[in-house]
Amino acid sequence: MTGTSLSVRAVAAIPEIHPGDDLAGIIARAATAEAEGLLDGDVVVVTQKVVSKAEGRLVPVDPDDPLDHKRLVEAETVRVVRRRGDLVISETSHGFICANAGVDLSNIELGYAALLPEDSDRSARRLRDGIRARAGVEVAVIVSDTFGRAWRRGLTDVAIGSAGIGPILDHRGGHDTYGRQLQVTEVAVVDELAGAADLVLGKATGNPVAVIRGVDPAWFRPGEVRRELVRPPAEDLFR
Amino acid sequence: MTGTSLSVRAVAAIPEIHPGDDLAGIIARAATAEAEGLLDGDVVVVTQKVVSKAEGRLVPVDPDDPLDHKRLVEAETVRVVRRRGDLVISETSHGFICANAGVDLSNIELGYAALLPEDSDRSARRLRDGIRARAGVEVAVIVSDTFGRAWRRGLTDVAIGSAGIGPILDHRGGHDTYGRQLQVTEVAVVDELAGAADLVLGKATGNPVAVIRGVDPAWFRPGEVRRELVRPPAEDLFR
Repeated sequence: MTGTSLSVRAVAAIPEIHPGDDLAGIIARAATAEAEGLLDGDVVVVTQKVVSKAEGRLVPVDPDDPLDHKRLVEAETVRVVRRRGDLVISETSHGFICANAGVDLSNIELGYAALLPEDSDRSARRLRDGIRARAGVEVAVIVSDTFGRAWRRGLTDVAIGSAGIGPILDHRGGHDTYGRQLQVTEVAVVDELAGAADLVLGKATGNPVAVIRGVDPAWFRPGEVRRELVRPPAEDLFR
Repeated sequence: MTGTSLSVRAVAAIPEIHPGDDLAGIIARAATAEAEGLLDGDVVVVTQKVVSKAEGRLVPVDPDDPLDHKRLVEAETVRVVRRRGDLVISETSHGFICANAGVDLSNIELGYAALLPEDSDRSARRLRDGIRARAGVEVAVIVSDTFGRAWRRGLTDVAIGSAGIGPILDHRGGHDTYGRQLQVTEVAVVDELAGAADLVLGKATGNPVAVIRGVDPAWFRPGEVRRELVRPPAEDLFR
């Protein structure tokens, strides 16, 4: 059924993550301890927050001084895309467009904020390599974060880093069932996978890791979110 | 495991859909004929194209005259949001922002184009009611379409209509694991569900229906994509 059915599960028993923790080892242990285990071809989705915590991307912020958070956001913003009241839509050093430059105060010890990983694709590669080393399985890894969108209310989880899976599935040259060349040629499958993982992780539980099984093996290839999925400003109509 | 694990499957054996077809009956028959069946609490995701076909939203278009398609796009566009070369980013009568006003030429008989359903939430409600009547199960229905995004390359499937499930999951008033009020308050779960379904439907197969099982029952409530998820122009920073 690979390719025509998927399972998505939250990995239980991931402990609180601290700077310097071996996140790959923790994920490998927790996932392999479960009945479903961890198999070649699984896609492991890890939320940005625990990746940032393990990488020590925590900075002190005065919980009683909103300006302190604001200063942090300004420091992480390479360009302000839009501003309305307290809301800043930032372009980050990675090229991501998101609220408050991804500086995150929730599910973090009071008095600290989490910054985005320096290189979120490198973070995904390290997790992929670490899981291979510790569990002996070849998985793809997606680092996800929760972003807003233009035009539509609500937030969705998207991929900010990936390893072992192509961020974009390219149907170019493909044909529809009538033999016509396909109009829709590029699908951002890593974003759809990150969103699918969020459906079982949720915001209040703090559960940070999901395993998706059944993904088409043809999607597994090298590729980076920042190189393939971030739209270069020159071709972007909305910056 | 409801809420912490999901299954997503493509429903096989959906025949070619024609104007006037009983789409709800066809989906109910095909899904209940499968081993997994169709159960209360399942989320049925149906791609816009078959909904438009069943509703007769097909219009003739001269395949040899690109201008004919262009005229159709202009007619379906209430406002041009951006234009670059042949690409038109349209606001539709529903308030959706998408390429070419959602006028679709792929996987449709040569010489015809598919328009978006007139009222995509009503389409979802009719399918939900029809499936209840024919299969005796209480499902939620999402009508999905493939849209591009600002800032990020590639397309993802999103919800253009829904019935029986809240388009937005509101965590407002919720608290994180540290007792802090949640920053992320509104999650567009119907978009994440539509994207998850696309992972098993794909673009080239033309397989138009997916069933997602294991969704948190607390998400099931009345609600409309157009009312809750489409961002009113006044609060949109990117039109």
